[in-house]
Amino acid sequence: MNRYNILLDPAQMPDHWYNIVADMPVPMDPPLHPGTMKPCEPGDLAAIFPEPLIEQEMSAQRDISIPGEVMDIYRLWRPTPLRRAYRLEKALGTPAKIYYKNESVSPSGSHKINTSVPQVYYNKKSGINEITTETGAGQWGTALSIACSMFDVKCTVYMVRVSYEQKPYRRILIETYGGKVVPSPSNTTDSGRAFLARDPDSTGSLGMAISEAVEVAAKSGGSIKYALGSVLNHVLLHNSIIGLEAKKQMELAGDYPDVVIGCCGGGSNFAGLAFPFVQDKIVKKLKTDIIASEPAACPTLTRGLYAYDFGDTAHLTPLLKQYTLGSNFMPPGIHAGGLRYHGVAQQVAHLAHQDIIRAVAVKQNPVFEASLMFAKAEGIVPAPESGHAIRAAVDEALKCKETGEKKTILFNLSGHGHFDMSSYESYLANKLQDYELDDEVIQAAEAEIPKVETVV
Amino acid sequence: MNRYNILLDPAQMPDHWYNIVADMPVPMDPPLHPGTMKPCEPGDLAAIFPEPLIEQEMSAQRDISIPGEVMDIYRLWRPTPLRRAYRLEKALGTPAKIYYKNESVSPSGSHKINTSVPQVYYNKKSGINEITTETGAGQWGTALSIACSMFDVKCTVYMVRVSYEQKPYRRILIETYGGKVVPSPSNTTDSGRAFLARDPDSTGSLGMAISEAVEVAAKSGGSIKYALGSVLNHVLLHNSIIGLEAKKQMELAGDYPDVVIGCCGGGSNFAGLAFPFVQDKIVKKLKTDIIASEPAACPTLTRGLYAYDFGDTAHLTPLLKQYTLGSNFMPPGIHAGGLRYHGVAQQVAHLAHQDIIRAVAVKQNPVFEASLMFAKAEGIVPAPESGHAIRAAVDEALKCKETGEKKTILFNLSGHGHFDMSSYESYLANKLQDYELDDEVIQAAEAEIPKVETVV
Repeated sequence: MNRYNILLDPAQMPDHWYNIVADMPVPMDPPLHPGTMKPCEPGDLAAIFPEPLIEQEMSAQRDISIPGEVMDIYRLWRPTPLRRAYRLEKALGTPAKIYYKNESVSPSGSHKINTSVPQVYYNKKSGINEITTETGAGQWGTALSIACSMFDVKCTVYMVRVSYEQKPYRRILIETYGGKVVPSPSNTTDSGRAFLARDPDSTGSLGMAISEAVEVAAKSGGSIKYALGSVLNHVLLHNSIIGLEAKKQMELAGDYPDVVIGCCGGGSNFAGLAFPFVQDKIVKKLKTDIIASEPAACPTLTRGLYAYDFGDTAHLTPLLKQYTLGSNFMPPGIHAGGLRYHGVAQQVAHLAHQDIIRAVAVKQNPVFEASLMFAKAEGIVPAPESGHAIRAAVDEALKCKETGEKKTILFNLSGHGHFDMSSYESYLANKLQDYELDDEVIQAAEAEIPKVETVV
Repeated sequence: MNRYNILLDPAQMPDHWYNIVADMPVPMDPPLHPGTMKPCEPGDLAAIFPEPLIEQEMSAQRDISIPGEVMDIYRLWRPTPLRRAYRLEKALGTPAKIYYKNESVSPSGSHKINTSVPQVYYNKKSGINEITTETGAGQWGTALSIACSMFDVKCTVYMVRVSYEQKPYRRILIETYGGKVVPSPSNTTDSGRAFLARDPDSTGSLGMAISEAVEVAAKSGGSIKYALGSVLNHVLLHNSIIGLEAKKQMELAGDYPDVVIGCCGGGSNFAGLAFPFVQDKIVKKLKTDIIASEPAACPTLTRGLYAYDFGDTAHLTPLLKQYTLGSNFMPPGIHAGGLRYHGVAQQVAHLAHQDIIRAVAVKQNPVFEASLMFAKAEGIVPAPESGHAIRAAVDEALKCKETGEKKTILFNLSGHGHFDMSSYESYLANKLQDYELDDEVIQAAEAEIPKVETVV
């Protein structure tokens, strides 16, 4: 066995996704229709999603086959490497073993393409030739644009205006793959025009961009569908291939993690790595410590309310039971744009609420400190989002240094930072701010969460 | 065998580099001392290079062991994948088989780190704690900065001013790994001050930046050494791991290339992939078609003079027998900055002069057209330099489409284009110019090549 690289034989790549719904010890509360506040029926989602994805969204089947055409595209970069971070361990002087799953090697540079490919595949199979979406930091817009180019589907991306202006290279990357990028809020939708009427200089938010993209699909009469890059059950499902591979690779390494860590915004990369290990924790009653690392500037899991809430600002989406800071919450402008979401996937929230997983909140200067340490040791400059996982892993490894424990730590390197260099420049120039939100701010935001009676 | 991914077991990674000098059918002309115009002695290089690298520069030994500490770092990303570009083949409708070696997966994003790691290792082993270099597009500066951070060596990079200003993210990447970046020409060296005296607004050139970096090393009294990212024998030697791996992987695929292609500026990525196949061509008398693809805007191999010439603008380096456009030649501002060099590695020139390899020159709009086709088919956005190899591979595949030949084509994807998005923006906006140099321009530049009698 090679010490550094734990590669999986491509023939051993998992041919199914893992659906955690099958193993939840307590059933989840159902999504609610935004109009009736009653549990959603599959048909309620038909305006914006194709039928096979609605089926996956509602499914309780444990293993769901990956179609051959999706497998063929996954094989362009999967299985991704699992690496033992020996050089980082040495730099930290820790007795802990640190492994990371390297999702940054994908064409889109992050884990997001694990779900964009099957989403576009199922849309195409359902006769759809045009898809809309939103993007914040740009990772998801890139992933969807690549997948659309591979299935010859038209792709329109509503990009949060501040990212559109500050990250021109992300926009160009999306355009290079053929996607059309619209800065949001825009005057191409009713919700966009309403946001602009309220604030003509709005720099946008993920919640606003979701509203615009959903509206376009909902009003298309069925010809245009919408795709979401995180939060929903089927998105988390598609990312489970990360953890399924990692489990096989840990076995090849002759090891099993005591601690599993992912950064957490909407929840897709965290869930992707963690859920197959959560399964072991539930089914085999293991004691694995499973940690979602979120920004202190957007502390959904650590300080949010466990409640039903909308996914977007214009309240067009179903309500999900989740941890939420309120759908109008505007997080400070931290560089990990992909983690600036007011809520979190209901599956992640459900597991956190039952203490099967736990969350930590970290500040951005310590995140970049850990990211630089990682870059110098392992060579890869991480995305600011992934830096949150690295920080948590480094903290766990440093605890081991104090206690002498030889824990095995596994984290998800969800993406590289090649399009985030301005954030590194700010860090190197000592210009990054560490936000810690006041209780009053959080309480004010949470006051806007709708009061919903438990309906089931 | 998986159809897409031809992965090499890490345990099978080559443990030696291949030195083509051992198999040259005709010996090469020696480098000349810039002062005496007599053949260089090893001692002549001691001011700027450490002894183990000078030994490799002069060596005629076929296989040279890779030190364990270098192997350990190579394993952070090597063996790199060999991939069959099925989706590109399908998009082209060609009967040809297209394989590419994917060097873009390295931490620096290109093949350059194959030589920066051993160069810094041998320097450190020789007691050196500070290294200078130049960088044009920024690929080499990044690779050296990473290697220096891994061996705890101070790194100063003279960056061509136009790149420094137009590619701030490349500069920040170099700084993220700890390297210091100085825009060239600068007032920190005699040669820099001389360039600035002649033209205070100079945007710089690779030749000028080399002069500055070499001067700092030469005047340091031995404490600072210089590192070069291409051209020299030891640089090509270190990159031979690309082709050695590719040969093993082609064997795993049950195939052997009829055509081997690399883009060619100084020559390091081309030689890295090609030389192990050149060995077969020479020793086993194969008919392999081995193609260096260079820009029509800087047509060194296709229109340069075969002559002794300097490597830099200030004429501080030894003279090498090469194809050259003259050391003062200023190529048009194409986006493949890494290919804007007036000369080429003497080993590459020597093989071209004997018709063992051949060269083609391609224009940048067709290069970007092929790069976009590749990105949409295979997912990866290539560096503009690597796009030159893709163009040549696509041209060969299209010839096969006409003739019906089922050739096996192998090219080197030397790096990704994540830091070159502005060039894609220009291409997408139809703003790229295709340069074809007039004979008069070339003749005027070549008139400045020194007249040197063959001395051996």
